[in-house]
Amino acid sequence: MFTGLSAFPLTPLPHDALDERAFVGLIERLAASDVDSITALGSTGSYAYLSTAERARVATLAVDYAGGTPVFVGVGALRTSDVLANVRSAEAAGAHGILLAPVSYQPLTGDDVFELFRSVTESTELPVIVYDNPATTHFTFTADLTARIAELPGIASIKIPGVPVDPDEARARVQSIRDRIPPHVTIGVAGDGFAAAGLAAGCDIWYSVLGGALPDPALRITRAALAGRIDAALAESDRLAPLWGLYAEFGGSLRVVAALAEHLGLVPERSLPLPIQGLTVEQRARVASVADELELEAALGH
Amino acid sequence: MFTGLSAFPLTPLPHDALDERAFVGLIERLAASDVDSITALGSTGSYAYLSTAERARVATLAVDYAGGTPVFVGVGALRTSDVLANVRSAEAAGAHGILLAPVSYQPLTGDDVFELFRSVTESTELPVIVYDNPATTHFTFTADLTARIAELPGIASIKIPGVPVDPDEARARVQSIRDRIPPHVTIGVAGDGFAAAGLAAGCDIWYSVLGGALPDPALRITRAALAGRIDAALAESDRLAPLWGLYAEFGGSLRVVAALAEHLGLVPERSLPLPIQGLTVEQRARVASVADELELEAALGH
Repeated sequence: MFTGLSAFPLTPLPHDALDERAFVGLIERLAASDVDSITALGSTGSYAYLSTAERARVATLAVDYAGGTPVFVGVGALRTSDVLANVRSAEAAGAHGILLAPVSYQPLTGDDVFELFRSVTESTELPVIVYDNPATTHFTFTADLTARIAELPGIASIKIPGVPVDPDEARARVQSIRDRIPPHVTIGVAGDGFAAAGLAAGCDIWYSVLGGALPDPALRITRAALAGRIDAALAESDRLAPLWGLYAEFGGSLRVVAALAEHLGLVPERSLPLPIQGLTVEQRARVASVADELELEAALGH
Repeated sequence: MFTGLSAFPLTPLPHDALDERAFVGLIERLAASDVDSITALGSTGSYAYLSTAERARVATLAVDYAGGTPVFVGVGALRTSDVLANVRSAEAAGAHGILLAPVSYQPLTGDDVFELFRSVTESTELPVIVYDNPATTHFTFTADLTARIAELPGIASIKIPGVPVDPDEARARVQSIRDRIPPHVTIGVAGDGFAAAGLAAGCDIWYSVLGGALPDPALRITRAALAGRIDAALAESDRLAPLWGLYAEFGGSLRVVAALAEHLGLVPERSLPLPIQGLTVEQRARVASVADELELEAALGH
């Protein structure tokens, strides 16, 4: 279940409130696509900004409208008791797995993070994805800690933030993780621009921001890479390079994909939670221009 | 009001629940001391981990038991609407000011942060302390942004994370901020080990972690420095160097001061919110040993 393409939908929050209709629309489009799973309430889904009650509602909507597609739900929070409350609501919603990041305000120690994962895996039968994303959590996993956590019963996958650009280094990096984790634990790449390289280097799954809004181009990369057609995967990723360029230029994927989804009419304007204002008018024009150049409107397809 | 010593009490959370009796005890001790103000729900008060309802309760208790001592309340949160809810509860509690940090999950832009401060200053008559603490917020203020925010009506003080070790550089750094902010806006130093140097370099106020647990040694530093007896202030700070050393060695002030307060019986054991486990048994023994060496139990005084 933790292989292929996992699509991370936005959680549209215009006027500081969940737009249920728009969120359901995103889920229905993903359910009608060929994605292997949907991860609601990832970083792309603004999980860290939502109340426990809002998160329970989003989890329920995601599962209810996903058809047969497995749904994973992000449960991370600053306080362990809030994490456990989110685990309960993911279970109640019928999620197939949970995604857990060591969100921090005070810097966390390795033991803090290990005990967090232990508490969660002891409290649920749901499989757990370890979410390693130092750009947002400001916590850096050591290789030792990743290996220790991967041994916990219930750990299903590890989401790594990217791979080195050099293919040999990328393969060595993925293998170095693989060598230290149980064989049933999959490795997933995040960072859309690294996805083709990550899958080519041996990752099993792409945890994809782009796939949450536009599954088709993300599926082309994923299917090609996992079938061993590495050149085709890299070519499709290269074709999308102007989009990855905007991610780098405009401070990450979230603001760019939110602006793209707003431009394509998938979500309402100003869909991100304040204080995140999203892109400026000029930046949005650049996103629209790249969307035209890459014919992303056609990717809306079905 | 934003000068002298502002003491930052812990918010004791044993077994994941606010210990009201212990918190009131901390506030009453500060009220009986000579501190110039109390800042509840700073980083030391674990504000980021508490619910909106818990924060309202802590703010009320702090004001109710502070006697005549002015109380400032930390209102920072990831989402602007939660910040504004915390502002409302600080007002309702009768706070004399609020402390606002640009807490982040997704990295924030300068414009995001400016608009956050604008929204808050427009929504309240309470004076606002700008909380610049990149170690926890992961947001770095530029000099330009600090100056822009300081011009907003209602901004009363800027809490800077520390000063350079070299006295001339420290003075130049404080002066460079002073040159760009309105004269009524005070500058406060955080980072207890930098406090004497910061006050000597021209800061008006010390936002003090140690002062929240042990006001007397913090007052000795503050009163000496602000009376121009810089050597005496630096000597008292040097005397406490073993404590500052533990801050550096054990990952910051919070875990050390929590362990110290637990050791001295000011708060119950395991007072920090999980996943923060606090210091190990061996580390706690080191804290106890430094407390003995520095005769900190005697500092409990009144």
